[in-house]
Amino acid sequence: MADRKTEELIEQMLGGSRLALARLITQVENRSAAVGEIMRRVHGRTGQAYVVGITGPPGAGKSTVVDQLTARFRAEGASVGIVAVDPSSPFTGGAVLGDRIRMQAHTLDPEVFIRSMATRGSLGGLARATSDVIRLLDAFGKQWILIETVGVGQTELDIVKQADTTVVVLVPESGDGVQTMKAGLMEVADIFVVNKADRSGADHLVTELRFMGHLHRSSPGEPKDIEWEIPALTAEAQSGVGIEELLAEIRRHRHLLEAAGALERRRQARRRAALQALLIEEFSEQVGRRLRSDGDLAATFEAVAGGAMDPYSAVAEILKRLHPA
Amino acid sequence: MADRKTEELIEQMLGGSRLALARLITQVENRSAAVGEIMRRVHGRTGQAYVVGITGPPGAGKSTVVDQLTARFRAEGASVGIVAVDPSSPFTGGAVLGDRIRMQAHTLDPEVFIRSMATRGSLGGLARATSDVIRLLDAFGKQWILIETVGVGQTELDIVKQADTTVVVLVPESGDGVQTMKAGLMEVADIFVVNKADRSGADHLVTELRFMGHLHRSSPGEPKDIEWEIPALTAEAQSGVGIEELLAEIRRHRHLLEAAGALERRRQARRRAALQALLIEEFSEQVGRRLRSDGDLAATFEAVAGGAMDPYSAVAEILKRLHPA
Repeated sequence: MADRKTEELIEQMLGGSRLALARLITQVENRSAAVGEIMRRVHGRTGQAYVVGITGPPGAGKSTVVDQLTARFRAEGASVGIVAVDPSSPFTGGAVLGDRIRMQAHTLDPEVFIRSMATRGSLGGLARATSDVIRLLDAFGKQWILIETVGVGQTELDIVKQADTTVVVLVPESGDGVQTMKAGLMEVADIFVVNKADRSGADHLVTELRFMGHLHRSSPGEPKDIEWEIPALTAEAQSGVGIEELLAEIRRHRHLLEAAGALERRRQARRRAALQALLIEEFSEQVGRRLRSDGDLAATFEAVAGGAMDPYSAVAEILKRLHPA
Repeated sequence: MADRKTEELIEQMLGGSRLALARLITQVENRSAAVGEIMRRVHGRTGQAYVVGITGPPGAGKSTVVDQLTARFRAEGASVGIVAVDPSSPFTGGAVLGDRIRMQAHTLDPEVFIRSMATRGSLGGLARATSDVIRLLDAFGKQWILIETVGVGQTELDIVKQADTTVVVLVPESGDGVQTMKAGLMEVADIFVVNKADRSGADHLVTELRFMGHLHRSSPGEPKDIEWEIPALTAEAQSGVGIEELLAEIRRHRHLLEAAGALERRRQARRRAALQALLIEEFSEQVGRRLRSDGDLAATFEAVAGGAMDPYSAVAEILKRLHPA
């Protein structure tokens, strides 16, 4: 239940207050008890924003790309929300936030809202919180939302899969890794950008990526809902080279998705997945509460922990207690 | 419920049949309906094996290290189970299995049981299946179980966290990545091995890892249950150099865990986490079954998918339907 203060914040946010938005995001990030009420209240205002994911290895220049895209959107008068997500998963560390601190260009523009998010505890929670933050920015009226994350693990994928169009930013040096990451790249990328393309190896990587994109398009396997061959562009984002072309590809992808009805189908699948994840989160919390109040249930948990009972027998018993047939 | 055939397989496995073991593992990997019954039946025979996790980036020589450790264990007459897990998470690809195919040394030794596992669908499912396979090998009588996985994401961590002692294998070239991965490495590593130590940069990396280990030990933060400073060893696993030292460190870690009661405490925490994961898995399946039989529930899901209803309101409604107070 949202308290009076949260109610006021929601009103202020929907009225255009950036400060109120920032505070609501903090509640969502901390998974406060009011999250459900907040998201319920803003729901009717969502669904207008277009979400672009920017992922890739540390040091590829993702923040610069985000920065440059933001400048282009702003030049057209569109408002922009940026979410930089740092899963801080053990094998990546704080790479995104490190990059992010360098990005200062738009911090004074009131039509650009930038938020960094890092993991606090569960990684599943981070993907969920990111999804809620996207919807808050959407309800706030942002037309383009850019999600930036380091692309290396399942959580980052869960995050980037919330985008309508995903751009994978690589550098010429990524070449060696590309073969290894092939399946995964093809799964998430809608557009490849080889950044820092003045370095040697860029042409080779672009050729390789285009070939992969071509094979992927013509491969059998699951039916594709749009006719799209993943393009591979070059860029030197620092000086703005290649950004217009990237923007054109993002728009082309967007129009194709919209024309084919695929955008709505994909969003539906995403909402279904979000509901399932939320259901599991709530269920886990229910179990946690029951564990504190129900001695028999706690005893079953301890029997498993001590090795006296196998977990499969325990699960059957616990579910029977939780919802008797 | 296990059918007659599965009952027989369990009997044969507990009687020492490798073929029966292999078939049961396949059932566990495929999450067949009999998994619960299988794990219930073997539960009383588990808890004797010691589990060593071997993780690290692709190409670090993990398989060779596993191979060499296996040779040492066999020389002492101990039996060994090896599980090579390939999460095939998008950004890693099939690296582990590629390595694994090269490891042929012990395939003819009846006291060494080797199994490769790859993801089939959900990554969460893979961690759970791995945990069950470890317990099957344990029940089968394996004294040492080696789990090998490429260490890059959350799933790999979930897998490697099932080990009693975890060895992180790096190569001199990993140096650049180490600072980035620092927090994660410290979270999982009990022992570092810098393999291919004849290449340049090995000494530098060892010094860096030792320094990190030293800082980690003396850092405040969560209380540690044992006094252990993560050692960093060098090895040239291909020619066996450094393997005795690695084995000595594994044993030293094991004895310390046992003497401090930490082994049992950690195993309890692991069993508790496994129970929670299993509970969620079962709950999700229940919801799936209900969705197919309960039209109102399905309608709620579709309302969320279509955007007419927010997921938080839907979750409250669904949980009320599933277990009325």
